[in-house]
Amino acid sequence: MNSTIETILNHRSIRDFEDKLLSDEQIITIINCAQAASTSSFIQAYSIIGVNDVEKKKELAQLSGNQSYVEKNGHFFVFCADFHRHDVVSEMEDVDLEPALESTERFMIGLIDATIAAQNAALAAESMGLGICYIGGIRNNLEAVCDVLQTPKRVIPLFGLAVGYPKTITGQKPRLPFTNVYHENVYQQDHKHYTKQLEQYNETITEYYQERTNGARKDTWTAQMANMLKEPKRMYMKKFVEEKGFNKR
Amino acid sequence: MNSTIETILNHRSIRDFEDKLLSDEQIITIINCAQAASTSSFIQAYSIIGVNDVEKKKELAQLSGNQSYVEKNGHFFVFCADFHRHDVVSEMEDVDLEPALESTERFMIGLIDATIAAQNAALAAESMGLGICYIGGIRNNLEAVCDVLQTPKRVIPLFGLAVGYPKTITGQKPRLPFTNVYHENVYQQDHKHYTKQLEQYNETITEYYQERTNGARKDTWTAQMANMLKEPKRMYMKKFVEEKGFNKR
Repeated sequence: MNSTIETILNHRSIRDFEDKLLSDEQIITIINCAQAASTSSFIQAYSIIGVNDVEKKKELAQLSGNQSYVEKNGHFFVFCADFHRHDVVSEMEDVDLEPALESTERFMIGLIDATIAAQNAALAAESMGLGICYIGGIRNNLEAVCDVLQTPKRVIPLFGLAVGYPKTITGQKPRLPFTNVYHENVYQQDHKHYTKQLEQYNETITEYYQERTNGARKDTWTAQMANMLKEPKRMYMKKFVEEKGFNKR
Repeated sequence: MNSTIETILNHRSIRDFEDKLLSDEQIITIINCAQAASTSSFIQAYSIIGVNDVEKKKELAQLSGNQSYVEKNGHFFVFCADFHRHDVVSEMEDVDLEPALESTERFMIGLIDATIAAQNAALAAESMGLGICYIGGIRNNLEAVCDVLQTPKRVIPLFGLAVGYPKTITGQKPRLPFTNVYHENVYQQDHKHYTKQLEQYNETITEYYQERTNGARKDTWTAQMANMLKEPKRMYMKKFVEEKGFNKR
């Protein structure tokens, strides 16, 4: 096993960081790694906003549901889908690009490009001995996040990435069964088999929580998912992304 | 520089592979790495379909715009946003999850989760000396791709990942200027400065193409983007993803 694969397999989200900032050199390496990623047809439809301003971090932490590690970390990155750049291209080249930029296809490309870049950044950080945690919580209130970061139209902050020196290192949660996630040639739809896989996974997850909490937490994956999804969250999103000029046609 | 960062910075897309298949062990390692990635609230909203069937690869290559490397590679992976699993959860737990699963927020999570996993897979492959190429071309005709892969409702193939032993290794295209992509604390919107950055980048890209083609290709990044985006592509996508049960509310 090579050291890249070791780094990848050793991943866990870190939510407790030492009080130590990243150096400029570390930040530059992380961004260089993000930029080295694949990008759809060379479109590079993303931007990254690095936040070190103490007040801004505090605001973002509050907006993300009072997650302390959004405020207390070595550096906080926000990854955005970005077609503002292509609005500027439209002006420079005097061509109307709006129908393309407003399409669901381009919305998907913005998400994919930003996320490929983000995972490169995450792994670069982890390979340097730093810890990371993706912060979907910034999507609780994107309008306010856009105000804090002063993003223009056609830019959507997608998630944060808290990076820093790990203080508390947690365990790794067992993933879904291999054959539930990986299919060969066609998607395996046998309903009985599929349900059975999830039941077995439930047992694995129950054991995991029991061990970690000395028997206190009784939970399964399917119950956890049902509980999380029964009340839909962030239902402002459809309107919000359309207002920002995405996903409209 | 550690070897993970070396692997990341050394990335180039490979479009010409040796006639040699990946071993089962390599495939398992790649999928294990994909699964080790971060996932939004443990939701694991993706699936991966590995394609080695010769006929299926041929069909996918045709559907992707006759890209030979979709057919000729060491293994072809298709990464999907997947909430079919959560439809099964809904049944198992007897809770209505449809309002959440149909939301734009969850559509975004499916895209983000699948892409984080994919980039782990890509880097794992590259760290083993293999080459990779993301294939957005499968989105030319997703209905037909779904037929080939027999995916159920609430599953959207997002992109392919061709993996194999590199035969021809190409150069690396220069990326957007660092400060155009990376902002500190707030998004830098100074229009004049922003335009100037893109003009400078155009010069870099022109030089790059001139050198590679002995002066034959005269192109800039902004012209290339304008040319690509002036005719909107894949405009069936909005309706398609809605019909698959995503991005509806």
